[in-house]
Order: sequence, then C-alpha cells, then structure tokens
Amino acid sequence: MQELIESITRKLQVLREARESLLEDIQANGVLGDEVEAIAKDVCKPSELDKFRMFVGDLDKVVNLLLSLSGRLARVENALNDLDENTSPGERQSLLEKQRVLIRQHEDAKELKENLDRRERVVFNILAGRLSDESLADYEHFVKMKSALIIEQRELEDKIHLGEEQLKCLLDSLQPDRGK
Amino acid sequence: MQELIESITRKLQVLREARESLLEDIQANGVLGDEVEAIAKDVCKPSELDKFRMFVGDLDKVVNLLLSLSGRLARVENALNDLDENTSPGERQSLLEKQRVLIRQHEDAKELKENLDRRERVVFNILAGRLSDESLADYEHFVKMKSALIIEQRELEDKIHLGEEQLKCLLDSLQPDRGK
Repeated sequence: MQELIESITRKLQVLREARESLLEDIQANGVLGDEVEAIAKDVCKPSELDKFRMFVGDLDKVVNLLLSLSGRLARVENALNDLDENTSPGERQSLLEKQRVLIRQHEDAKELKENLDRRERVVFNILAGRLSDESLADYEHFVKMKSALIIEQRELEDKIHLGEEQLKCLLDSLQPDRGK
Repeated sequence: MQELIESITRKLQVLREARESLLEDIQANGVLGDEVEAIAKDVCKPSELDKFRMFVGDLDKVVNLLLSLSGRLARVENALNDLDENTSPGERQSLLEKQRVLIRQHEDAKELKENLDRRERVVFNILAGRLSDESLADYEHFVKMKSALIIEQRELEDKIHLGEEQLKCLLDSLQPDRGK
C-alpha cells in the first residue's frame, strides 16, 4: 500500500511539473498572440480587427465548451454501461435523460466549432492580405497552439484530479486501520 | 390528494397546449427567417450571406447554452443553500467544485453571447444597406423572436417537466397505500 501511495505521489509531482511548464507555454503563446494583434491593429481596418479579436476570444470558449461536454457525455455513458439489474428504473431513466440532453448540446457545440473554423478561414484570408509572411506564420502558429494547449491543459488537469482522488482514497482507507 | 392530482393534471394540459401553440410560433418564425434569407441571398455578396447564416446558426446554440448553464448553476446553488450540518465535507466540496466550474463556463458563455451581439450589429449594418425597410424590419423581428421563443420554450419545458415530476411523486405515493 505504502509503495502505491509513493508511486502515485511521484506521478502527481511529475504531472504538476508538466502543468507548470504548460502554463509557461500558454503564457508565451499569449504573448505571441498579443504581438500579432498589435501588428494587425496597425494594418487592418477596425472592422477587420474586430473580427480577429472576436474569433480569438471565442476560440478558447468554444474549445473548452466542446471538451467539457465530451467529458460529461463520456462520464454519463460510462455510468450507463456500468448499470446492472440492481439499478432502479428511475436512476436509469435519469441517466438516459442526461445523455439525451448532453448529446444535443454536444451537437450544438460541434456546430459552433464548425462555424468558428469558417470564421478562422475568413480571418486568415483578411490577414493574408495585410500581414508579412512571417507575421502570418506567427498568427497561424498562435491559433493552432491556442487550441492544442487548451486540450493538453484539460487532459493534464483531469489526470492530476484523478491522481489526487486516488491518493485521497488510499489515505482515507489507511485512516480507520490506524484507529483500530 | 385526488384534488391535487386533478389540479396538476389540468395545469399540465394547459402547459402542453401552450407548448403546441409555441411550436407553431417557432415554425412561423422559421418561415419568416427563410424568407429573409432568400431575399438576402439575391442582394448580398456570398461573404455577407455567410455572415448572416453563421450568426443565425450560432444564435440558438449560444442562447441555449446560456440558459442551460444558468439552470445548472441555479440548481447547484440551491443545493448549496440546502446543505446543513449533516452534510459530509466531501459532498459540500464536490458541490463547491461544480459551482466553481459552472461559474467559469457561465462567464465564457456570456462572453460568447456578447460577441454574438456584436456580430448581430455587423449583420444588421450589412443588411441595412441591402434590404428594403420592410425586409429589414422582418429580419429584426425574426432575430428578436428567435431568442425570445427559445427562452419561452425552455421555461415551458421546465414547467412541464416539474409538473410531470410532481404528478409522478403523487401517484407513486398513492401506490403503496393501495397495496396495504
């Protein structure tokens, strides 16, 4: 048992260091985005800059929304798979209802993401006519990394959360033994 | 008891009739939207039509998202208010964590809605230069009604759901009495 606790503790430490490093990457990417925006501000019309800013502002919100709904849907579907003959019909019904709502919301979020991808192409075409090749490459990198870093962050947070839960369970399960 | 059941049953019937009538309004508003889109298709540039369609497509998704998050947040906050000294710290912690996540998602959804409102003004300005006064008024009515009808639909569905739950509880509570 003590070995398992140490192993999870080490794993958690590695994950937390990865999170530190990821937060630095996110910050660096934000700086890159600010630089591109500062250049775009000089060369774009106000309405074009507005499109740029709205697209970038919506990007992390829609990606976070999609990830959150995928996660909740997966958890509800796992719970449905874990049902057995002891499950009350009410509980099964409530899970099926949750699944139904989440599937619809997930479809909606996917459509928001598709429209966002189209807005990304519109903004790219605007910037392609305004920015130097180098700045345009920076913009592309910034946008690609912004989604990728959010996804990585979510996965890391989930792993850390899981590790912390496991550790808590193990420590709790030791507690009553000591008391005896 | 029987009186209460009859009263809820009657209330449910009224609500379901209201839902029928609301669905007709939603359909009629959809037809109006299709008409405006058909006219816009003739007089707008493809990129402008694209903006119109993306805005309209995102509108119900973002409004639904906001309503769903407001509802979940209210339920979690009610649950937190209902806690008493018998609640385990784990349960309280889990609710606080849910509240924390929902508050952030609700903030994100509000920002998506703010950006959507800005896109609405962009689309309005485009159409104001292209459509007749009458068609522009139709467009404004269509967009205003689209959000309002979604909100009304959500409120009705919630009331119907609540009534059905109440009725089910009442009928279930009668069941064992009959068995005795």
